[in-house]
Amino acid sequence: MSDDIDATPGHAAGAAGRRPQVVILGAGFGGLNAAMGLRKADVDVTVIDRRNYHLFQPLLYQVATAGLSPAQIAMPIRRILSRQKNAKVLMESVQGIDTASRAVVTDNSRIGYDFLVIATGARHAYFGHDEWEASAPGLKTIPDATEIRGRILTAFERAEATRDPDLRANLLTFVIVGGGPTGVELAGAIVELARKAIVRDFRHIDPSSARVILVEAGERVLPTFPEKLSAKAKTQLERLGVEVRLGAAVVRCDGDGVGLADGQEIAAASVLWAAGVMASRAAKWLGVPADRAGRVVVDERLHAPGLDGVYVIGDTAAVKGADGRLVPGVAPAAKQMGKYVARLIKAKLSGSAIEPFRYRDYGNLATIGRKAAVADFGWLWLSGLPAWLLWCFAHLFFLVGFRNRIVVFLDWAWAYVTFDRGARLITGREDR
Amino acid sequence: MSDDIDATPGHAAGAAGRRPQVVILGAGFGGLNAAMGLRKADVDVTVIDRRNYHLFQPLLYQVATAGLSPAQIAMPIRRILSRQKNAKVLMESVQGIDTASRAVVTDNSRIGYDFLVIATGARHAYFGHDEWEASAPGLKTIPDATEIRGRILTAFERAEATRDPDLRANLLTFVIVGGGPTGVELAGAIVELARKAIVRDFRHIDPSSARVILVEAGERVLPTFPEKLSAKAKTQLERLGVEVRLGAAVVRCDGDGVGLADGQEIAAASVLWAAGVMASRAAKWLGVPADRAGRVVVDERLHAPGLDGVYVIGDTAAVKGADGRLVPGVAPAAKQMGKYVARLIKAKLSGSAIEPFRYRDYGNLATIGRKAAVADFGWLWLSGLPAWLLWCFAHLFFLVGFRNRIVVFLDWAWAYVTFDRGARLITGREDR
Repeated sequence: MSDDIDATPGHAAGAAGRRPQVVILGAGFGGLNAAMGLRKADVDVTVIDRRNYHLFQPLLYQVATAGLSPAQIAMPIRRILSRQKNAKVLMESVQGIDTASRAVVTDNSRIGYDFLVIATGARHAYFGHDEWEASAPGLKTIPDATEIRGRILTAFERAEATRDPDLRANLLTFVIVGGGPTGVELAGAIVELARKAIVRDFRHIDPSSARVILVEAGERVLPTFPEKLSAKAKTQLERLGVEVRLGAAVVRCDGDGVGLADGQEIAAASVLWAAGVMASRAAKWLGVPADRAGRVVVDERLHAPGLDGVYVIGDTAAVKGADGRLVPGVAPAAKQMGKYVARLIKAKLSGSAIEPFRYRDYGNLATIGRKAAVADFGWLWLSGLPAWLLWCFAHLFFLVGFRNRIVVFLDWAWAYVTFDRGARLITGREDR
Repeated sequence: MSDDIDATPGHAAGAAGRRPQVVILGAGFGGLNAAMGLRKADVDVTVIDRRNYHLFQPLLYQVATAGLSPAQIAMPIRRILSRQKNAKVLMESVQGIDTASRAVVTDNSRIGYDFLVIATGARHAYFGHDEWEASAPGLKTIPDATEIRGRILTAFERAEATRDPDLRANLLTFVIVGGGPTGVELAGAIVELARKAIVRDFRHIDPSSARVILVEAGERVLPTFPEKLSAKAKTQLERLGVEVRLGAAVVRCDGDGVGLADGQEIAAASVLWAAGVMASRAAKWLGVPADRAGRVVVDERLHAPGLDGVYVIGDTAAVKGADGRLVPGVAPAAKQMGKYVARLIKAKLSGSAIEPFRYRDYGNLATIGRKAAVADFGWLWLSGLPAWLLWCFAHLFFLVGFRNRIVVFLDWAWAYVTFDRGARLITGREDR
């Protein structure tokens, strides 16, 4: 295939009556909300993503810990936009952007744009230690999640098979690097898996003897939360059985485990990485400056600097909030930016102006485990069971797709009653 | 890991009070039923499988056509045998069998046996044309199913993106080679996917224009059914929209499509293989004769020839029924053989004898699509809606695990009402 999408009748360039072309890269929370916000606009919307599904990333850790199946947190992009007649979807990989002639270059085509919205998200990053990835996978995609799930379950299988006590201890030690929401969620879910879901399934090992160690370089977990909630989260993690090591910077990471800056070594067969993210290559595609985390520094209306009609949103953008702090890389922020850009494009087309983007922080939630979570609404802090129930309902509410909500709800209800995990599959490359 | 499982206290060899060791290779229908049949026997049971889950293969085609998620038809072997205290599970790959010293050699260990049950199943086979596998994948495992699902969905994506009418027609043609139950199920499910589930999701193509061609070398589909039901199945397939080509032997198969023995060519980007299976390598491991399909020719008590205490069951065994015909490679036959071998081992231990294995044929069911199936009970033939309802209930009933039954039932009920497919994910090796 080497077709030029430009050549379709829909956007035969140059004609006077031609509808403005809006191209959106990425169908995460930002891109999808931008597309849906243009539903009634007199434009043609093309959403390009290299995957065919939108992923509900906040629940990805549950796929990684065998609680949910991938399809339960993923919806085909085409399906979501099926009824939006001015939108079409292309599953292609972006190779670059020709800003001079205003076209996106993918592996198969060249797509002209009048407005371009870049919402290509972020990947986990090792900040100069890419060689750590092989022994410490991160969690951003469905293949990441099934890889981690396979590693965790395989560690228990290998521990059951061996008679060597050192090897067994090594296999039953799980280190999670990074005390942000993902690290906290993973640590809590692995402990629960070991102590509840699989505890009776082995003969030679006691899965509940597994050690789960959360290693954080900073002085507290969940650093974006108020200090008091960080302390509550730590207590709740420890109550579940997680060992929390604060002020512990990782300086070595390989198949044997991790080494810390203070010289301590933690022997562990499984190391999971939740310590940082790097934005997608948007800044390189556009030839504009990026900040340290690879984000495009946009202006207060989310414009890429010096590029008319080009917007960068979500985890790919660095944008300051009203308080002067960077807007956090969370789903609600990406959604708000997507909606804002849709309004901005409509305003431009009608010749009006709109106010700068303003991030509205409706509160922060982080889950830790069964009946354990923290919630920060500024005026109200919650922890424990109330925060956890709130987290459950909020995530069900926002999970795209009515059907997925029912099925996920049933899975959670089942898991709550039985402690069972429904998706304990080890699948992998060699398993063909 | 290079531990010798022999060295565990449980089977410290040679001691007079040592319990007999039963080793079961494979946790399919045959192996699991053998293990569960020994629940109350005074033996140690070790189940070895290279995967950690039991797969409900009869519904695998629904994973391949985006109807179900892998975890809905797979259950952890450990979970199934969790409460059977005399059974343990090892996730390892068998490398060979040392029949002289009575031990199974895996990649990690060497496991002594008094009784050995081989239930390692079959793979799809190309009968001298292994080079066809790359362009015509078969369906036996979960990775097979997700690969096929990805190919089908990607073909529609690529057809949407191209402007070349020939390429588009090629991408929208699906050839299924083999008119047995798997081929019929796949053909019916792909037509339904194209005409219902995804029909409104595209802008440039009409998915319902996709051609689905079922190619069968013999003179009828479902050759193990009575001729009249084969004819009914063909009519039902054609009513759904499948083109059925009988007497059509494939002589060429590559990325461009297939060539038939009569010189005809079918251009198709997607070819799926459902034309034959080859038993696992059990005959090679044992050094005993195999039939043309690689099956070990066992005696009427399922003994491998000349090897005391070694039994071969399920798709790996060639065993004649009372009517002189080979017992078919279906789940109920494997289950019956598993149960029989458990009884046989118990009888041997108590010094009694039991009658030869006798296959009881409770009837055959094959599904074609929505409200379309055939059922043969010898005394009663059904087709259409009654057969389809029977098929639905029978498969729900036999699906391992109460939880999976509920979730699969909900998925089916949802799909029936909405024509939706819940698991339309393209995941693959490069997608990391």
